[in-house]
Amino acid sequence: MAYMLHGGDIYHKKITYDFSVNVNPLGIPPGVQQILRDSVGHWDSYPDPECRQLRRKLAGHHGVEEERIACGNGAADLIYRLAFGIRPRKALLPSPTFSEYGRALSAVGCQVRHYGLREEENFRVDVGELARFLEEGDILFLCNPNNPTGQAVPNRQVAQLLQACRDKQVFCVLDECFCEFLDRPDTYTFMGNIRDWPEAVILRAFTKSYALAGLRLGYAVCGDPGVAGKLRQTGQPWSVSLPAQEAGVAALEEKDYLEQVRSLLRREREYVGDGLTKLGFCVFPSQANYLLFKDVEEDSHGNLWEQLREKGILIRDCSNFAGLGSSGSGLPGKDPAFRYYRTAIRTREENEKLLDAVRMAVQGKNEKERNPVI
Amino acid sequence: MAYMLHGGDIYHKKITYDFSVNVNPLGIPPGVQQILRDSVGHWDSYPDPECRQLRRKLAGHHGVEEERIACGNGAADLIYRLAFGIRPRKALLPSPTFSEYGRALSAVGCQVRHYGLREEENFRVDVGELARFLEEGDILFLCNPNNPTGQAVPNRQVAQLLQACRDKQVFCVLDECFCEFLDRPDTYTFMGNIRDWPEAVILRAFTKSYALAGLRLGYAVCGDPGVAGKLRQTGQPWSVSLPAQEAGVAALEEKDYLEQVRSLLRREREYVGDGLTKLGFCVFPSQANYLLFKDVEEDSHGNLWEQLREKGILIRDCSNFAGLGSSGSGLPGKDPAFRYYRTAIRTREENEKLLDAVRMAVQGKNEKERNPVI
Repeated sequence: MAYMLHGGDIYHKKITYDFSVNVNPLGIPPGVQQILRDSVGHWDSYPDPECRQLRRKLAGHHGVEEERIACGNGAADLIYRLAFGIRPRKALLPSPTFSEYGRALSAVGCQVRHYGLREEENFRVDVGELARFLEEGDILFLCNPNNPTGQAVPNRQVAQLLQACRDKQVFCVLDECFCEFLDRPDTYTFMGNIRDWPEAVILRAFTKSYALAGLRLGYAVCGDPGVAGKLRQTGQPWSVSLPAQEAGVAALEEKDYLEQVRSLLRREREYVGDGLTKLGFCVFPSQANYLLFKDVEEDSHGNLWEQLREKGILIRDCSNFAGLGSSGSGLPGKDPAFRYYRTAIRTREENEKLLDAVRMAVQGKNEKERNPVI
Repeated sequence: MAYMLHGGDIYHKKITYDFSVNVNPLGIPPGVQQILRDSVGHWDSYPDPECRQLRRKLAGHHGVEEERIACGNGAADLIYRLAFGIRPRKALLPSPTFSEYGRALSAVGCQVRHYGLREEENFRVDVGELARFLEEGDILFLCNPNNPTGQAVPNRQVAQLLQACRDKQVFCVLDECFCEFLDRPDTYTFMGNIRDWPEAVILRAFTKSYALAGLRLGYAVCGDPGVAGKLRQTGQPWSVSLPAQEAGVAALEEKDYLEQVRSLLRREREYVGDGLTKLGFCVFPSQANYLLFKDVEEDSHGNLWEQLREKGILIRDCSNFAGLGSSGSGLPGKDPAFRYYRTAIRTREENEKLLDAVRMAVQGKNEKERNPVI
């Protein structure tokens, strides 16, 4: 049942609008697309295992040394390389969060503890409290902004957290895959400080920021160049495909693209949030390119995920996120109390389609209640 | 020094002709290239983690059930998934052979023994002898045809070997990545029998057979569907990119392409082999799309690899293959007795360039000997 683990399963059933994955709604930049089309004929060559050109370019882009950078077949590849390469014994994860951290850690027999984010605080990460839950020798994954909740921790607070990590010899993975979608990424990213923190690594994803989800491209920037070397050496040599490397190099030339999507998100985040609120859902405040929302009362709208999918629209059913599923069965439609959803923020035209479909689902439900079929 | 581990490093230095990797010399089929160009705009979607369309197509192609198939980010990805997923304790490898088996096994702490193939027998695999070296609980990798030696084991003998594996509870990986390049693949592939052997798995690579080296695509066909499930579940869900899946589906429509390359190889294998023999090298008989050859006496031609590279031509220096390196230092130019090379067989035009360059290198050496610079 891999289709339940994550969003993006547009292959199982006909899907016209996919709001279940959080990639850049502007799509792959046209300039990058052109470069890909022009180079298809050369893809019979092996990719550079060391990703030298891409790492050089990323180093210039972020003002860090190439030695600190490791590229991966999507950020998910790097999460597994961290797990297989470092083989941590115990871990702390704020919950709910991206499920692949726990999956990768469990694959190497790592014992995972959860720090439960509180719904009544909008799933905000309390850095001081989180630090108190750390134990000597932990690995900590902090998704910033967090997926699926959309809350971000400013880099000043991240520095406090890392000081606690240093004191307790904790290794910290800062997953910044959605950072570029924040209104002011500079306030949140730890990139400017990473060189001073050998116990930290930052993950980034072209997959998300430049919509290269199908091509797969992520990278890690490590405080300790030795960790980057370890990541590059773990697993097969040709993990990052040639087109992914070419697309990454080209994407970094697209100077206005990210600013453009931030301006779109600023407007559309509010539009979608207001729309869902008016339709009777509880929408959690988000700074990212997605919104977590839920029914105001148990089973108030039926199974929205299923109803939208019938209309060719996919949102993310959050029942299999630790901390959001009510019974943990993970099966949509089987559990009446299941009710958290995540939707991506996309273009106005697409967002209108989403809200229209949700409206129809809500009204259909209400009418059914007024005229029950007996 | 990743550039020494394998061929294909055309990124470190300007290379015009790459004979160091064994991909199909016809390049990516034009029909596949066109499909890739047409679909670039859709690569913002996540790939199907289950590779359903591709597996369905492969199942039909090979006459096996989809449940027995797992796809990977190149066959190398599947070698690591086998290692990380099964975590074997001890292994037997015929040597010399593809180095990633040993690397993947070592990464999970597996103890590796080598069964040395004998040069005086042209590195032929003696199945009966190999079977006697097997120990209870081993994992065995048989590269068929073997890389870098080019010798293949007929499937009737593979069946004998597998019977020995069954008797000793050995799991056997049959790497058939170069099988399509043999003159008569049907005599060698075990695909027709795989359903009866739960202790076996066959690896195949679009990377090689359809020249998708840059795109990365391989697959495993497993005697035991449970093993295929394990391979699919190990590591990240989106290992196989969307373009790789699309290219794989399209490649299977290219009915004449593999027959075309076999006919080319039949002719060119002999042409290159004869040429190198006439230039004074010892060429080992090969049934595959590459030739292993060596200097007839110690340092008789200087460092051919280095001399060709200066001319923009890359061949595979074999000094870091277990069983072929003389001192194991693995550094070209540092070891005077180092002398095994592997070259791919490519198109006539390219093969002529190779032989011309080798001729110049050999003559340059001879002239230097006649007129030493003092």
